[in-house]
Amino acid sequence: MKMKEKMPEKSYAWSKSIVTILKLGGSAITRKEKQSTPNTGVIERLASEIKKANIKPLIIVHGGGSMGHPVAKNFGIKEGYRSPAQLVGFSKTHYAMVKLNELILDALIRRGLPAVSIQPSASVMTENGRILTMETKPLLRLLELGCIPVLYGDAVLDTSLGFTILSGDQLASNLAVNLNASRIVIGVDVDGVYTADPKLDPTARLVKQLSLGELRKLKTKIGVSRAPDVTGGMLGKVSELIPAIEVEIPTIIVNATKPNRVYKALKGEKVVGTVITAGE
Amino acid sequence: MKMKEKMPEKSYAWSKSIVTILKLGGSAITRKEKQSTPNTGVIERLASEIKKANIKPLIIVHGGGSMGHPVAKNFGIKEGYRSPAQLVGFSKTHYAMVKLNELILDALIRRGLPAVSIQPSASVMTENGRILTMETKPLLRLLELGCIPVLYGDAVLDTSLGFTILSGDQLASNLAVNLNASRIVIGVDVDGVYTADPKLDPTARLVKQLSLGELRKLKTKIGVSRAPDVTGGMLGKVSELIPAIEVEIPTIIVNATKPNRVYKALKGEKVVGTVITAGE
Repeated sequence: MKMKEKMPEKSYAWSKSIVTILKLGGSAITRKEKQSTPNTGVIERLASEIKKANIKPLIIVHGGGSMGHPVAKNFGIKEGYRSPAQLVGFSKTHYAMVKLNELILDALIRRGLPAVSIQPSASVMTENGRILTMETKPLLRLLELGCIPVLYGDAVLDTSLGFTILSGDQLASNLAVNLNASRIVIGVDVDGVYTADPKLDPTARLVKQLSLGELRKLKTKIGVSRAPDVTGGMLGKVSELIPAIEVEIPTIIVNATKPNRVYKALKGEKVVGTVITAGE
Repeated sequence: MKMKEKMPEKSYAWSKSIVTILKLGGSAITRKEKQSTPNTGVIERLASEIKKANIKPLIIVHGGGSMGHPVAKNFGIKEGYRSPAQLVGFSKTHYAMVKLNELILDALIRRGLPAVSIQPSASVMTENGRILTMETKPLLRLLELGCIPVLYGDAVLDTSLGFTILSGDQLASNLAVNLNASRIVIGVDVDGVYTADPKLDPTARLVKQLSLGELRKLKTKIGVSRAPDVTGGMLGKVSELIPAIEVEIPTIIVNATKPNRVYKALKGEKVVGTVITAGE
């Protein structure tokens, strides 16, 4: 993680604990109801919001949604290597993610943003699905130069499983911890973490502030009862962020399908969402 | 470079000194005369030849030709970082390579070949244009699993220049040395190395066998006289291969624009081309 290289220009010096990590959920940037269909409207609007917010340094991580998940599921990529027939599936899963990544890159570059893709499967190795090593030298160099690295959930190589799926959430959390990020902004397709599933329970209300202690209690409760995730499907996602919140990286979850939520979160303005902080 | 990971299946064990490196020149897979135009006919035929040859393990490295070079040149990417205006150019150069890479991947996957892209700019750092570090764990794991890693010339991050261009030839040679490859097959748009430029000199003849000693003499002669490259433009390419030939990795240059040349070279059959070997 150390940067010993010479800098091309001092004005592009990049230091730790100032980088913002923006995670764009697959559920927001693709159409859930239609397989392999990106939500180009949301992608274009988010690119405009990112341009307008003008946050530096910034790392973007996006998910796969209906572009990546069906292909991965079809070939059982997450569960690891079992037969040679899966190998083309590994490639197809990565390829589907590259297609989605291209749309995002294209939207950012058209707005003059120096976004550069970093292929997670070329730089990360996982062990039983957890990040074991990650080559970050190119990524750090990109930040130094003033570029916006764009990573994504990907089919990756795994030391014990052969291959597996690395979620964008794990990647975002891991990068935040390793780069000592200043904050994490998570864009999803709901307003944040709810007290109950808002689609099933009319009394469900949005949790505006969630402490790590409360989050852990919620996780234990659900774990013990084996009840379905009553938080509106957000608990798995939020659990992945625990390592980052433990080291006191402020995290906010906002609805990326609603205009200006991501923009306001990036600017640090008051916005509808769930803020998760360390402490009990 | 060490592989300590567990293997998913013994049948997929991969050992050193058996891997074949196939370099597909940008001049063969794109149309020289038309900017940003892939030569899909050649790409499709080469994919069929690779499928038919059925060589394992295999690594493919391709160049950029008229897809990558004009973009890179336009922004002065090879010369390194001078101004923020180049940053979008860095991204666009990589993006152009990804587009070409996709066509090749698509052609291979459609034939059932488990080809997987590896982004060089995510795994390589150069120093003054020469490879300094390369993360090879994912690539080695892909080979173990029976996949075909596909790499390409790319805009990469450089410790002293900020960024630069890494040629597919340097990458192929470096991989061959580091993985102790069994051989290198180079596909270009001419039949091999000539005694003179065949387009200008009717007495020019193809050099069927070239030793490292002869190659070095040729290089010195041209270097001293500052004469143009009389070998038909192949000397720069061939010079890049010297480190691999020095460690006795047999190398053959064939015309990838002519049917079955790459196929025969992969199968080790007699074929028109230039074989370069160690020794005087």
